[in-house]
Amino acid sequence: MANTIGSIFRLTSFGESHGPAMGGIIDGMPAGIEVDLNEMQRVVDRRRPGQSQLVTQRAEADQVEILSGIFEGRTLGTPIGFVVRNMDVRSEDYGHLRDVYRPSHADYSWQAKYGLRDHRGGGRASARETVSRVVAGALAMQVLEHLGIQVLAYTTQIGDVKLQPGSPLDWNQTWSNAVRCPDATTAQRMARAVDEARAQGNTLGGMVCCAVMGVPAGLGEPVFNKLNAALAGAMMSIPAAKSFDMGAGRMLASMRGSETLDTMHAVDGGLVYEHNYSGGIQGGISNGNNIFMEIGFKPVATLMRDIDTIDMQGNPVTIHPHGRHDVCVVPRAVPVVQAMAAMVVLDHYLLAKTNHL
Amino acid sequence: MANTIGSIFRLTSFGESHGPAMGGIIDGMPAGIEVDLNEMQRVVDRRRPGQSQLVTQRAEADQVEILSGIFEGRTLGTPIGFVVRNMDVRSEDYGHLRDVYRPSHADYSWQAKYGLRDHRGGGRASARETVSRVVAGALAMQVLEHLGIQVLAYTTQIGDVKLQPGSPLDWNQTWSNAVRCPDATTAQRMARAVDEARAQGNTLGGMVCCAVMGVPAGLGEPVFNKLNAALAGAMMSIPAAKSFDMGAGRMLASMRGSETLDTMHAVDGGLVYEHNYSGGIQGGISNGNNIFMEIGFKPVATLMRDIDTIDMQGNPVTIHPHGRHDVCVVPRAVPVVQAMAAMVVLDHYLLAKTNHL
Amino acid sequence: MANTIGSIFRLTSFGESHGPAMGGIIDGMPAGIEVDLNEMQRVVDRRRPGQSQLVTQRAEADQVEILSGIFEGRTLGTPIGFVVRNMDVRSEDYGHLRDVYRPSHADYSWQAKYGLRDHRGGGRASARETVSRVVAGALAMQVLEHLGIQVLAYTTQIGDVKLQPGSPLDWNQTWSNAVRCPDATTAQRMARAVDEARAQGNTLGGMVCCAVMGVPAGLGEPVFNKLNAALAGAMMSIPAAKSFDMGAGRMLASMRGSETLDTMHAVDGGLVYEHNYSGGIQGGISNGNNIFMEIGFKPVATLMRDIDTIDMQGNPVTIHPHGRHDVCVVPRAVPVVQAMAAMVVLDHYLLAKTNHL
Amino acid sequence: MANTIGSIFRLTSFGESHGPAMGGIIDGMPAGIEVDLNEMQRVVDRRRPGQSQLVTQRAEADQVEILSGIFEGRTLGTPIGFVVRNMDVRSEDYGHLRDVYRPSHADYSWQAKYGLRDHRGGGRASARETVSRVVAGALAMQVLEHLGIQVLAYTTQIGDVKLQPGSPLDWNQTWSNAVRCPDATTAQRMARAVDEARAQGNTLGGMVCCAVMGVPAGLGEPVFNKLNAALAGAMMSIPAAKSFDMGAGRMLASMRGSETLDTMHAVDGGLVYEHNYSGGIQGGISNGNNIFMEIGFKPVATLMRDIDTIDMQGNPVTIHPHGRHDVCVVPRAVPVVQAMAAMVVLDHYLLAKTNHL
Repeated sequence: MANTIGSIFRLTSFGESHGPAMGGIIDGMPAGIEVDLNEMQRVVDRRRPGQSQLVTQRAEADQVEILSGIFEGRTLGTPIGFVVRNMDVRSEDYGHLRDVYRPSHADYSWQAKYGLRDHRGGGRASARETVSRVVAGALAMQVLEHLGIQVLAYTTQIGDVKLQPGSPLDWNQTWSNAVRCPDATTAQRMARAVDEARAQGNTLGGMVCCAVMGVPAGLGEPVFNKLNAALAGAMMSIPAAKSFDMGAGRMLASMRGSETLDTMHAVDGGLVYEHNYSGGIQGGISNGNNIFMEIGFKPVATLMRDIDTIDMQGNPVTIHPHGRHDVCVVPRAVPVVQAMAAMVVLDHYLLAKTNHL
Repeated sequence: MANTIGSIFRLTSFGESHGPAMGGIIDGMPAGIEVDLNEMQRVVDRRRPGQSQLVTQRAEADQVEILSGIFEGRTLGTPIGFVVRNMDVRSEDYGHLRDVYRPSHADYSWQAKYGLRDHRGGGRASARETVSRVVAGALAMQVLEHLGIQVLAYTTQIGDVKLQPGSPLDWNQTWSNAVRCPDATTAQRMARAVDEARAQGNTLGGMVCCAVMGVPAGLGEPVFNKLNAALAGAMMSIPAAKSFDMGAGRMLASMRGSETLDTMHAVDGGLVYEHNYSGGIQGGISNGNNIFMEIGFKPVATLMRDIDTIDMQGNPVTIHPHGRHDVCVVPRAVPVVQAMAAMVVLDHYLLAKTNHL
Repeated sequence: MANTIGSIFRLTSFGESHGPAMGGIIDGMPAGIEVDLNEMQRVVDRRRPGQSQLVTQRAEADQVEILSGIFEGRTLGTPIGFVVRNMDVRSEDYGHLRDVYRPSHADYSWQAKYGLRDHRGGGRASARETVSRVVAGALAMQVLEHLGIQVLAYTTQIGDVKLQPGSPLDWNQTWSNAVRCPDATTAQRMARAVDEARAQGNTLGGMVCCAVMGVPAGLGEPVFNKLNAALAGAMMSIPAAKSFDMGAGRMLASMRGSETLDTMHAVDGGLVYEHNYSGGIQGGISNGNNIFMEIGFKPVATLMRDIDTIDMQGNPVTIHPHGRHDVCVVPRAVPVVQAMAAMVVLDHYLLAKTNHL
Repeated sequence: MANTIGSIFRLTSFGESHGPAMGGIIDGMPAGIEVDLNEMQRVVDRRRPGQSQLVTQRAEADQVEILSGIFEGRTLGTPIGFVVRNMDVRSEDYGHLRDVYRPSHADYSWQAKYGLRDHRGGGRASARETVSRVVAGALAMQVLEHLGIQVLAYTTQIGDVKLQPGSPLDWNQTWSNAVRCPDATTAQRMARAVDEARAQGNTLGGMVCCAVMGVPAGLGEPVFNKLNAALAGAMMSIPAAKSFDMGAGRMLASMRGSETLDTMHAVDGGLVYEHNYSGGIQGGISNGNNIFMEIGFKPVATLMRDIDTIDMQGNPVTIHPHGRHDVCVVPRAVPVVQAMAAMVVLDHYLLAKTNHL
């Protein structure tokens, strides 16, 4: 269960940051689906490191090798095994961390759990594991497309630069700028904020919004596998994620019932909500309106400056990180958020097929 | 998977609001644990309806009947079956809703999913199902106590009344006032806010904080069943939950890395964080510091006034609810949040036992 | 996982032999299915104790109370909770066994596992738990009927009396004689064998055949959840089951390939096998031919005579059982085998719906 | 669930016979275990094709590449990803089978399920997938060794040559002869039987016995995940497996209770059974005695002669197989049976750790 997500459409992943490879197995992929592996690779490339100065300079090609489950361009219904080799590994950068616990990192908690760890580049705790998520998500998106379902993800905040409500959103922009913001002007301001932070050896956090359009009513398995619960669990499993808001989210906590009461209109055999405060899900089940949510990410814990911490014996030490790190994870988290949403929605689509004979 | 939560310690629940009974099966309970069923009943009573004017006036005794798994006062290691009868059912109050979709309710989404529904009192979508969660959570808490783990939950906001940082918190207060706030003064202001909303036929939302103390380092199963991911999924499965913040949560998204960098101190073979911004979890694994999180709840969607909506044929209709409803779910959500946290932590405690031979 | 079976259609059960009640929760039942609860009760009655002199004289009404999931005669898609009260409990009959390990019984292994046990009537290890399986199986059969799938089970051997190949089989006979054999003549010989064994304070084992007709090609999830693997696991979980043969089973081990090569004929868009040696499953997936299997049961371990054994301290003791026991479990195992097959086939029918978009 | 086995110690596998690679992910491996990868490779080599004239002449090195989860010779507790490349692929041998359904093969049932299939060498239905099972089993055995648990598997029958009770068994023999029989004389007779069958273009089936020594009392999770149920499901998922006998198995069905009543002796805080008819498991839980079971395998369905069958349109066709095939799967099934037993026992060992706090 630890390294597997999903009930029907399931990803099981493996890989340490500085081991031979990352990879995974996608089980439960429906059979007979035409897949475009070039398109898959393009999606995976969006989270690739080294694409801009804003993110880690580790130079990984992140070339996905598919080992099974696809035959003559179509899915077989059998598991899809894949690997992504770790090429640009500089493990020597991490030798000084072998016996040290970095603050706000997973070093200590993993050591406490397992009694040992691969300290090189964070090992399995590194965000490098998210490459497997994006591979699976990219294929899930190709399936969802056949169903008329589209998954969008984009940056809404970096540091204190926020995408303002009412900004003109151009989805083509999202992947063409380095911060993954669909508004070019805001994107520039965000990029500048990241630049400034880097110059100071500092780091930034931010927020990512995800919207799923075209989801039919009826997805979500009450009471514990509600669609919103599954989305929350999936999103909070992403490294550095610290908050999850469904629809209007925590804003609703301060509103009165009379303000949140949404008006429904019958349209084409379905219902359309005027405000869609609940974000397309009610009682844990999709209602046919757009699903949207927001995920908050903390700043990267590795700062490029002297850091006081302790070693494994509890002695105070000062370290100066010299591995390659993101200044802000948010741009690279955007395709991961998208991938997680795609996997969850496809899984629930398949599950919902079993609600009737 | 739908009605089951947990990997080792697992609750499977059943029950419609106006059917014969609610209930569940707790599987994976460790054997040989002494349990106090009176104490369990006291915990269950905290979410019982009709306790104050602030919540629904449905008069349910919520008497738990244990049917198996406990023998001569100790757990057998076999599944614990239990039922809670629905006594005060006024199904006739809901006859007018048989063919109507209430706005911001689950009526339409459930109908779309299943093709039929028990419309009486919300059926399975009713928050009445949470009684089974509290039964299982109450027993989980008794087990956690043997491990020195304590789970607290309390109200931090109702409407726009917030528990201010620095308020004196008295855990004994929590269960002695109607709003479940550990600060008596704030509790009074919250109660007044609920009273006012009720007088206006309006409803309120709010926030619940949960803290788990005494959790050993090493709980959480990366990468998809991280402790924070499991907690987020569990909390977002509670009816009306709309947001989840882990530790300092979304506040971190606006902070710089240098501000969030937490200082560790070696203490008694473990580590203590100065600020504990991450809420006791790093890389998905507990670090031995207090775990805390906050969950946001939307206002109840049933207002005691004329409501314009549509029927199952899409025709506009006006309804006037006359069932018995909570004005604010937050007070009754507090024991549910506590129960969910207890179940997740116990489940991960047991899972972590399998990390080593 | 312990007390749950199935992936989509899932039964979770609870109950000790001499506790207040047996029961369970059926999750994943498709929505909108008309169910006949009287018919369900009739099926459950077939395994009821006390029906003939051949089985235990414990007088249980085994009245099933449905607590949820069915509304106005149709399934809601929500979990079906049910209880069956234990009425005729004579726990005092078991007082002498509190500190004793009976040979060939589960007393010692359960004590070793859990450190304590409910010794009364075998506790959770009693075959009484199978009542929950039959409740779920009876409902599963009603669903399968809508799909044109029929599940048969019948006794083929008791002691050394065997149903001979070529005997005229009359399915109506199965449930009208005490041994559940579809050939009246053989049934009489089997009944006589059981009578004789009882007269001697002895017990008998036997074999049960199960056939599933009308299963469409395509059910079974390779490679670990093959239909035959799922059936084997389900059948071997029945108390006293000791062998499982799929199709022609172990007979095939002694045959040459040229003898087992089955000829296929294309019929109505499907295939019909001449001999169907493989029992309707190839590569773990149903091929549209009849599925059949045979399950072997050992004799009941409780003999009505002095038995030398040891107590919990390892001291030799002699016990003389005086609880009420079956002389031969086979007749009561027949409806259990049928129930397990029905659950597995329905589960795989629902799973197979997810193989395609 | 389809391509995953186990609850805690879990193998997920992938790979088609003539695709780029086979492989898998082992999740739930306990942390900190020293592993010997050369020893693992030696175990994997035992099922390698081309080792003798008795089995398929496909020349696969079956070199296992470990991609994660092991660091400096010890398990990290993180998932172990591995691949085994398919090197000696002659897909052209299978071109004539693209549109044909072979009798007693999985061609039709897989086509019916998925609507397409990789026809080359049986695709995913090929026994080649078992290489992943042996990799995981080989590592599981290394863990079990630390616990003093040893898993044996050996051939007891090929065609009509049977290992006679009372034969002198020499475990070192098992892996040094081609048929995997621990009695050299019987091994020679078995080898001769296979030779003769091959000369005639015929094939043989047989039986494999598996014994697990040193299992502590208390493993097995009632009621549906009993140790015998888990073993039965695991064994019946092996290609060509058709029967499963636990302990004395079906022999018990013909015996009287008085004959099967086993005498227990208290020894060293545990119990020793005189006959151990039940094969070390009672009530689904290990009792500390040796666990043993027997699995029956059907003859290989591909005969080297003209075979009348039908094509995908239902037209009669005659094929003459010219791929490379085993004459008898039994010798290569022996390490697979051993691997499955090792995985199941280790999984239950870890599960049993959760039965107590």
